[in-house]
Amino acid sequence: MANSKYEYVKAFEQPDVLLPNTWIVVRIDGRGFHKLTDRYNFTKPNDRRALDLMNAAAVEVMKDLPDLCIAYGVSDEYSFVFHPSCQLFERRSAKLVTTIVSTFTAHYVYLWGTYFPDSPLQFPYLPSFDGRAVMYPATRNLRDYMSWRQVDCHINNLYNTTFWTMVLQGGMSNTDAEQELKGTVSSDKNEILFKRFGINYNNEEEIYKKGSVLYRQYQLEDIKPKSESKSGVPAEEEGNNVQEAKISRSQQDKLRKLRRKAQVVVDHVDIIKDEFWERRPWILSGKPGKLPTEA
Amino acid sequence: MANSKYEYVKAFEQPDVLLPNTWIVVRIDGRGFHKLTDRYNFTKPNDRRALDLMNAAAVEVMKDLPDLCIAYGVSDEYSFVFHPSCQLFERRSAKLVTTIVSTFTAHYVYLWGTYFPDSPLQFPYLPSFDGRAVMYPATRNLRDYMSWRQVDCHINNLYNTTFWTMVLQGGMSNTDAEQELKGTVSSDKNEILFKRFGINYNNEEEIYKKGSVLYRQYQLEDIKPKSESKSGVPAEEEGNNVQEAKISRSQQDKLRKLRRKAQVVVDHVDIIKDEFWERRPWILSGKPGKLPTEA
Amino acid sequence: MANSKYEYVKAFEQPDVLLPNTWIVVRIDGRGFHKLTDRYNFTKPNDRRALDLMNAAAVEVMKDLPDLCIAYGVSDEYSFVFHPSCQLFERRSAKLVTTIVSTFTAHYVYLWGTYFPDSPLQFPYLPSFDGRAVMYPATRNLRDYMSWRQVDCHINNLYNTTFWTMVLQGGMSNTDAEQELKGTVSSDKNEILFKRFGINYNNEEEIYKKGSVLYRQYQLEDIKPKSESKSGVPAEEEGNNVQEAKISRSQQDKLRKLRRKAQVVVDHVDIIKDEFWERRPWILSGKPGKLPTEA
Amino acid sequence: MANSKYEYVKAFEQPDVLLPNTWIVVRIDGRGFHKLTDRYNFTKPNDRRALDLMNAAAVEVMKDLPDLCIAYGVSDEYSFVFHPSCQLFERRSAKLVTTIVSTFTAHYVYLWGTYFPDSPLQFPYLPSFDGRAVMYPATRNLRDYMSWRQVDCHINNLYNTTFWTMVLQGGMSNTDAEQELKGTVSSDKNEILFKRFGINYNNEEEIYKKGSVLYRQYQLEDIKPKSESKSGVPAEEEGNNVQEAKISRSQQDKLRKLRRKAQVVVDHVDIIKDEFWERRPWILSGKPGKLPTEA
Repeated sequence: MANSKYEYVKAFEQPDVLLPNTWIVVRIDGRGFHKLTDRYNFTKPNDRRALDLMNAAAVEVMKDLPDLCIAYGVSDEYSFVFHPSCQLFERRSAKLVTTIVSTFTAHYVYLWGTYFPDSPLQFPYLPSFDGRAVMYPATRNLRDYMSWRQVDCHINNLYNTTFWTMVLQGGMSNTDAEQELKGTVSSDKNEILFKRFGINYNNEEEIYKKGSVLYRQYQLEDIKPKSESKSGVPAEEEGNNVQEAKISRSQQDKLRKLRRKAQVVVDHVDIIKDEFWERRPWILSGKPGKLPTEA
Repeated sequence: MANSKYEYVKAFEQPDVLLPNTWIVVRIDGRGFHKLTDRYNFTKPNDRRALDLMNAAAVEVMKDLPDLCIAYGVSDEYSFVFHPSCQLFERRSAKLVTTIVSTFTAHYVYLWGTYFPDSPLQFPYLPSFDGRAVMYPATRNLRDYMSWRQVDCHINNLYNTTFWTMVLQGGMSNTDAEQELKGTVSSDKNEILFKRFGINYNNEEEIYKKGSVLYRQYQLEDIKPKSESKSGVPAEEEGNNVQEAKISRSQQDKLRKLRRKAQVVVDHVDIIKDEFWERRPWILSGKPGKLPTEA
Repeated sequence: MANSKYEYVKAFEQPDVLLPNTWIVVRIDGRGFHKLTDRYNFTKPNDRRALDLMNAAAVEVMKDLPDLCIAYGVSDEYSFVFHPSCQLFERRSAKLVTTIVSTFTAHYVYLWGTYFPDSPLQFPYLPSFDGRAVMYPATRNLRDYMSWRQVDCHINNLYNTTFWTMVLQGGMSNTDAEQELKGTVSSDKNEILFKRFGINYNNEEEIYKKGSVLYRQYQLEDIKPKSESKSGVPAEEEGNNVQEAKISRSQQDKLRKLRRKAQVVVDHVDIIKDEFWERRPWILSGKPGKLPTEA
Repeated sequence: MANSKYEYVKAFEQPDVLLPNTWIVVRIDGRGFHKLTDRYNFTKPNDRRALDLMNAAAVEVMKDLPDLCIAYGVSDEYSFVFHPSCQLFERRSAKLVTTIVSTFTAHYVYLWGTYFPDSPLQFPYLPSFDGRAVMYPATRNLRDYMSWRQVDCHINNLYNTTFWTMVLQGGMSNTDAEQELKGTVSSDKNEILFKRFGINYNNEEEIYKKGSVLYRQYQLEDIKPKSESKSGVPAEEEGNNVQEAKISRSQQDKLRKLRRKAQVVVDHVDIIKDEFWERRPWILSGKPGKLPTEA
């Protein structure tokens, strides 16, 4: 039984190669996590076990795909970033996105028991994630994307912290707390926390306030006295995008091996200001740094 | 800290809505399953546990997404089919594909222990899947896609059965078996199996020869004496695609509820000939059939 | 001076092949024709010279591209239709659209003097057109697209005829006429025309009421007593899309030659009802009919 | 007759908005110009009238679309470049491409008689053009695209000049000339021209050797002693893409008016080296320069 008669259907597969020399961000989101957090009794406003599980799954994705240069997670979402020079899967969008979503999901489900030993998964109510790829042409755009997510983390966390403190410690109903917070700005919420509950928001844990940044660890660089470029990456690096894009397959393999040697770290720091990027130039340059020397 | 300064980055998200009134096939494939089957000692040429696990995960996807009208699985791949009238996630490609890939992965990992009790998953060597969406405009194209996959199943299974019988029972080296099979046609392989090993390929299990078909079970319809349309669906149904596409959200919800009531069955039958489709008209029409009456 | 150093930029060209087995409609529209009609004093509400020029240019496009099976024009817009089996330019969207837009523009500009002998083009105020391609998967969708444009023609022409009669014959200001017509339905407008100006809208010229339909002329077919398919094309033809899609390049060339022999006619008839399509089955089947025999 | 029944067909129109903050190149090409040059007896290897006509049509496109920042033409092709900050037509690909193709075609046909007074267009053998849009994320990529076209111009012109000199002055057959040139490098062709025909290729007209560059004329800037960026545009300008992308509609209108005031010039100069771009920084910055002062 020959198959040639039906093979014409392959012609309906349409290419989905992403534009060369652009940053690729794959953002994944928990599907119906509102329900899920209820079912498994996640702590409000933040469940440390859940965040640690997200980070653990994300670390495995970073290890599995050395082409990834940075990732940022907050709540039930995670953004994974490929460098403009990335050639993985010929930059096919569906392949990149589904690989990340599936690898993340596999580890999230597998590791669940480690982080929720008292709350095992109940079949068939399993966690799952959707995702999409977005291209950013300039390093400035990528930086602004990362800032957008971290500012969002801050705004949501301040709101949630205040709301749940009012409900859990203040004994207010959800509706009343929601009503009172309507129209308030940051300073109002800080004041509610401090005056009514003696909570200094600045003392909250960094992982809640800043989210989680994952990257490969190399030796930090000293910051030069003057930033030479607004984008936080030296001008000459930006121009290198093109050359990178043309590196050979064997060079790519070599880079992947080098990247695999670096440890993936989970950090909770500011990624909006330049300092983070200037001290870790390998993230934006796409070139491995120096491995930390042993003491 | 307002976020408006960075929100412009949302404008870089490009729409990926699939063309209305087309069949949507989401095909997922195991990533690096060659290695995986070695690591977990899958039986050659077919591992019944692995196929049952694939089917179990696929059944959960079908249950989770009542918009799916049929699915077909073979080896480490599965095709899930949405009807042309499907409006799920506004037909956004990435959303449809990642939801299926992630839900499938979650159940595959979760259920692993049930199907491989003696071979637990070894961290971090977890199974994962990639996937993509393809549109088929005509019912004939969709039927031909399904036939393509089933013919492929047959061709691969006959080859693999012969190859592994030659190696495992015949004591040949992989290379020798491969060499001898080069250029052979189906009848040659049937003869090798029968003459040398006394195996009648026709007696092999249907799940290996035909793959697995998943659909919602309603009362089978009698076949009319004459097929009135070459595509296996009455002509008037084909024209209905359009109307379906315009059904309201509340009607869609109602249809989803009806579909949830039907049992998802796993079948190993011919889906190339018309009979399968004519006796189960609800698959191509997109309208729920009559639930089986109890005896 | 070798060019290899720069040739990498070709990799940024992204494919834009339209989905196989779908109808392709290329609709073009006059750019800024409101201004243009003022500058060249087009007659209101319809300028016969302008419509004849549109049709003349469209006929040349149809002759130039035998793959086109029908076209429909109204006002300063024209829709050109390629059959699902069309393989022209490998179905590349930009190539199909720009070829039609450019060929149309060239003839429109070249023939201007023939239709506007007293109103030559004034440099640099030249007419130009933009365009886009849209895919329709089912014949029913294509038929509905055509109906949409013809209903639009009717609605606009009835409005414009009434408006301009009120202004030009009734001496009303534009604002007053617009105000009075606000919220009126067809019967209201018919009544205004008939009671105030003695105009029976039904007696208006067909080209204004129906727009212009272009197709290749073959022998008309008799209508069968019962329509066997709602889409105005026999069920067996619909199924043939696929086969057509697989016809060889030499067969395509042969079909093109046959189509070139047929005369392109300009008609002003109803294309919403089935009759038009049933008597001219070659339009939807994509297969040339019988050339009219000489008397 | 209401149209709502058919309006659903509008849902089949798919968005084609180009990625923000990328350079957009629209390249158009003459359709079947090989035949056309024969029919209208274009001079070989270069027909000055034809090139002047191409340039005249391109100048009108530049005037019509002030958003264009540069254009480059060679033979029967022209590349038009929009800045990353361009918001024209919401960056819809088909709209941008067809507008350029149609405007160019209109002027090309209209102006034909001015440049070919002795060789009027013969109906229906009219010139037409196809086109496509390509995105380039980095200024370096855009520069390399422009270099690619100019190197191509050089390679083709040297070949064509040598070939046609061998045929027209040397009396060789086309085949013999083609055969002899097979495998030759630039220096070989220069030698053939010089030794056999006394032609110094360097003395050929610049328009043939360099092609034609169109841009708006402002006061040239002095070149700074050291180029501060490899891309020929100061680093701070590159970062500005983003801000530009967010300029308001009224600012865009203002910029358009300013650009309309500048003269569009046709130049035949090197655009591969940095000098061209450094002396005309307004091209890459997207901001109008200073209008030349009157003497």
